[in-house]
Amino acid sequence: MTVISMKKLRIFVDFRPSADCLSLLEEGTSGHELLFAANPVTSVLHKAEVDPLLLTSDVAFGQPDVDAVKEATRLQWIQVSTSGITRYDNQPFHTLMKERGVMVSNSASVYAEACAVQTMAYILAQSRLLPEALASQAPNGSPAWTQLRDSLIPLRGQTFLIYGYGSIGRRLAAFLQPFGARVLAYRRHPRGDEGVPVVSDEQLSGVLAREVDHVINILPDSAATRNYFDAGRFAALKPRTVFYNIGRGSTVDQGALEASLRSSHLAAAWLDVTEPEPLPADHSLRQAPNCHITPHIAGGHANELRTLVGHFLDNLRRFEKDEPLLDRVM
Amino acid sequence: MTVISMKKLRIFVDFRPSADCLSLLEEGTSGHELLFAANPVTSVLHKAEVDPLLLTSDVAFGQPDVDAVKEATRLQWIQVSTSGITRYDNQPFHTLMKERGVMVSNSASVYAEACAVQTMAYILAQSRLLPEALASQAPNGSPAWTQLRDSLIPLRGQTFLIYGYGSIGRRLAAFLQPFGARVLAYRRHPRGDEGVPVVSDEQLSGVLAREVDHVINILPDSAATRNYFDAGRFAALKPRTVFYNIGRGSTVDQGALEASLRSSHLAAAWLDVTEPEPLPADHSLRQAPNCHITPHIAGGHANELRTLVGHFLDNLRRFEKDEPLLDRVM
Repeated sequence: MTVISMKKLRIFVDFRPSADCLSLLEEGTSGHELLFAANPVTSVLHKAEVDPLLLTSDVAFGQPDVDAVKEATRLQWIQVSTSGITRYDNQPFHTLMKERGVMVSNSASVYAEACAVQTMAYILAQSRLLPEALASQAPNGSPAWTQLRDSLIPLRGQTFLIYGYGSIGRRLAAFLQPFGARVLAYRRHPRGDEGVPVVSDEQLSGVLAREVDHVINILPDSAATRNYFDAGRFAALKPRTVFYNIGRGSTVDQGALEASLRSSHLAAAWLDVTEPEPLPADHSLRQAPNCHITPHIAGGHANELRTLVGHFLDNLRRFEKDEPLLDRVM
Repeated sequence: MTVISMKKLRIFVDFRPSADCLSLLEEGTSGHELLFAANPVTSVLHKAEVDPLLLTSDVAFGQPDVDAVKEATRLQWIQVSTSGITRYDNQPFHTLMKERGVMVSNSASVYAEACAVQTMAYILAQSRLLPEALASQAPNGSPAWTQLRDSLIPLRGQTFLIYGYGSIGRRLAAFLQPFGARVLAYRRHPRGDEGVPVVSDEQLSGVLAREVDHVINILPDSAATRNYFDAGRFAALKPRTVFYNIGRGSTVDQGALEASLRSSHLAAAWLDVTEPEPLPADHSLRQAPNCHITPHIAGGHANELRTLVGHFLDNLRRFEKDEPLLDRVM
């Protein structure tokens, strides 16, 4: 075996991997030093406590505390274990990372496929009115049966607008293509490589009012997106639009969403994210007509930690060879 | 306008189209004579009563009575308004149609797209455990939440076997392709144009026992398919296979299906068809674990009669020009 000369890295991990993931991680980091947080977080979504081991590490993998990162002057690379990076995504942190030359990558690729599949599950359940159909025992030919069949709107020719078009949107567009649906994208900074038409700010209101049947919200949480979907934006949608949220609950004014559902302006909502999570059992949004809520599981999948560790190891190989990191965000 | 010389046809229709479909039908059959049944059927799935008008018609569109067809010696073409043709699909009827030179076409194209979309809705709802997820209010990081996420099995790499591979199966294979699923076909008479690997009778049991994760049953009703999926065939599936039926309820031994679900050998069943339909509210299959039943709506879609009439008119144009009919079955 060829011995590759490389610097031994101190790698801080702030969650506790299962036995098989630990083996994968140990094998993939051999030659480096793994440092596990004294108080590991129970979910990769949760912020870790400050841990002194972080202060002497070169690499952090997980959800390291922002204040601790500021003191961790040896850090060269942070691999965030989620797709969302809200707690890091502010100008002072960006500036600090740039000054220190610290790279930050997230785990968007790990969750993008599952998120896109989840969204397709919502879209098809809506097209086939699965919740109603599974509850129906209407006999063939009965008025209730005919009405149900008549309400099943084919995807062919329907228009979808994806807000926050990125890796999830790209997968979703590929899934929708064979169904004959039309996919449009809206994003802050169009790059020209979207592969689907990108709606400009000037076109947006006209397209929403006249063409869009389904709004897919994948906006991240930030000061700019907080309550982005408010009463005015819901009112500006074409009547009977279907609204989906697999981004962050904070981007939606939930009162406005509920009112729009109750007035039948929106045909339905499919939400994987809310504020708070979980939404209280007695929250009125849960009783709104055609409001379907799942408990923030869109990115989840069997062997998720394995995929997450695999993604980190892919990036570690790149880091070692000084190659561009996957999902780099700073 | 060019006057095309063609024989004026007497076209018998045994269902009552809505106003807009009637306009479409009248416009599309102008130059011919439309004869509506005195007692129209309420559903295109239902067998019509004998109607003397049929006996003097050249074309029948709907579900004409088999005995009446035998007496209708002027008939040249029957356009069946469903995809299933059970009541006509027997050797004496085939022989009679052949002797008389009567063509029979069904409406498979009308329902194939919706049936394939319905099946994809089931498949994605299963992959994302939508019924459980919509009922869950598990907090992030809780054991119930982690267990739910860990149970969401990606489609990538999963193997689907489609029984009765035809126009629905073809669409379904196209829908599954971007998800990275593997699709196999099984059919009585392989034609070599399936576009996916066709499993032979010799390979079938090995493939089912070791490779197939999802069995899609689109078998038609016939003497050969009655109770095709029986206790032996369910036992021969790989443990935790998911079973889907969008063909006909008669092809499944429901007692065996229920036992297989109750023993957890099958992971889940998604059924659009049962015997009888609807299945009684207190039928024990409704209480079997992970058994999801919709009321025979897979082919249904908004403006369905319009699609059906459009398909008939497409075929009428072909009939007038002596071109091959779409969906010809005899």
